[in-house]
Amino acid sequence: MTPKIIRTIAELRQEIAAYRRRNPEHSTVGFVPTMGYLHEGHASLLRKSASDNGLTVLSIFVNPLQFGPNEDLDKYPRDEERDIRVAAASGTQIVFIPDVNEMYPQKTLTGVTVAEITDRLCGSSRPGHFDGVATVVTKLFNIVQPDRAYFGMKDAQQIAVITRMTQDLNIPVEIVPCPIQREADGLALSSRNVYLKPAERDQALILSKSLPKVPEWLHEGLNAAQLINRLKEEIRKEPLAVIDYVDILSYPDLSTPDGQKPLIETDCTLLIALAVKFGKTRLIDNTILNPLKVGDGLCFAK
Amino acid sequence: MTPKIIRTIAELRQEIAAYRRRNPEHSTVGFVPTMGYLHEGHASLLRKSASDNGLTVLSIFVNPLQFGPNEDLDKYPRDEERDIRVAAASGTQIVFIPDVNEMYPQKTLTGVTVAEITDRLCGSSRPGHFDGVATVVTKLFNIVQPDRAYFGMKDAQQIAVITRMTQDLNIPVEIVPCPIQREADGLALSSRNVYLKPAERDQALILSKSLPKVPEWLHEGLNAAQLINRLKEEIRKEPLAVIDYVDILSYPDLSTPDGQKPLIETDCTLLIALAVKFGKTRLIDNTILNPLKVGDGLCFAK
Repeated sequence: MTPKIIRTIAELRQEIAAYRRRNPEHSTVGFVPTMGYLHEGHASLLRKSASDNGLTVLSIFVNPLQFGPNEDLDKYPRDEERDIRVAAASGTQIVFIPDVNEMYPQKTLTGVTVAEITDRLCGSSRPGHFDGVATVVTKLFNIVQPDRAYFGMKDAQQIAVITRMTQDLNIPVEIVPCPIQREADGLALSSRNVYLKPAERDQALILSKSLPKVPEWLHEGLNAAQLINRLKEEIRKEPLAVIDYVDILSYPDLSTPDGQKPLIETDCTLLIALAVKFGKTRLIDNTILNPLKVGDGLCFAK
Repeated sequence: MTPKIIRTIAELRQEIAAYRRRNPEHSTVGFVPTMGYLHEGHASLLRKSASDNGLTVLSIFVNPLQFGPNEDLDKYPRDEERDIRVAAASGTQIVFIPDVNEMYPQKTLTGVTVAEITDRLCGSSRPGHFDGVATVVTKLFNIVQPDRAYFGMKDAQQIAVITRMTQDLNIPVEIVPCPIQREADGLALSSRNVYLKPAERDQALILSKSLPKVPEWLHEGLNAAQLINRLKEEIRKEPLAVIDYVDILSYPDLSTPDGQKPLIETDCTLLIALAVKFGKTRLIDNTILNPLKVGDGLCFAK
């Protein structure tokens, strides 16, 4: 089925209100906010939403607020026609594509900021990024008023930030984290992968090859600093890899684990997160694991 | 009718959802957020809401986030029993009285901030105040999800800030400004009036006596600085009056009018706002007028 394409907030609200009126008791609205240029990762979020909810809304909006002055806002890849085909094939009923003027009709004086958990990982490399994300996601939640919203775990910190924001502000939406989707050879799917030159693309595989080795290293008794160094050594074997960060934090509160203790003894869920540049393209990848459960291998989320 | 007293967010949401289910088409929810210790000003907001909406929700919550370290959080006056009687007499169906732990069950990392229009008037005297207001009002809007929310014009800057915030964040609520309510002798109603000693209470009348003279002074051709000085001179006739600020700004965007031009020629709506301490009690008052319409006296809102 072809989804309905909507470009204004007023029309979107009408459409969703009409849907809720037609289905007063049982039907829920699922929402997948994106910046477009959809890949299989986005499609998996849409399919999950479509299986959980009566109505699935996809938004496509490249949000200027979350790009830094030297980032890739202007060249961020776009392909609306293909996005609509992907949406249709994934069970989406509504595609909301506002332009910048529809989302920011006047200078925005209001910002939503999340403290502490935004000052590390990508927040440290991209100052202001999560303020922009928190603000636009709040706006989109207020526009769509979904019951559930779906986000990919590739942006694990983003999920932590948005989950905390919805708790702190009492936003009535359930945040549903969904697993990272990968190419057949392991590369985490990202709209930015199209920027990679062939040699960069080859060497970028070091990220998805390194992360699965972490459980083994945990068993060697490494502490956080040692594990970070081991990961950095591994990644630096590829000459084009320029490390932005490699870090290990508890999840989802993103606090630093005890630095001295072997990580295998840590009694909390850990996020092992990487950001590495290949040429001009910055890629991120991560894994979540619970050291106490590494023994049986059940908890290592690929 | 006795209103239903609700102390948890979960129960409030259930109650409002049940109301909306019972009245799917026509009924709207009106909301009056307060810090309690209700006076006739609050009662007028509740009555207005009750006449506009099928369901009126009053919240009573003394929000720690909007008080500065040297302000009156601990001694802010409270009288829950009387508040409930006032609510009942004003057509309120639900009184929501959460405690601090219900509103802030964990350290709040998320803040809503409104820039520029919060750095003047009360925002300049009370740093952080409007961040606290914007954050708690966002939370309450997300909890109640009202169609309309009612605020008194005594806090004119607060209305400007909240209106801008709902626009910027696309919060689906209509902000309804309501006129200042006054004692028979003119003193603007405020929960803080109970702090005033008799001599302070007498002299505080200078605020409501000065503001109605503004149109006359406009006709003399005063510019903004001259009018501010005239008001200050007038207020200082009372020996207990200690001026915090006297200011004139456009409304609701709160920008400074051309300082040289006679105000009578200004082509925008003006806010004339005062904050004056009497003893330990800080009082505010204001008036809105449109100089181009002062001639016929229609626009002077008492």
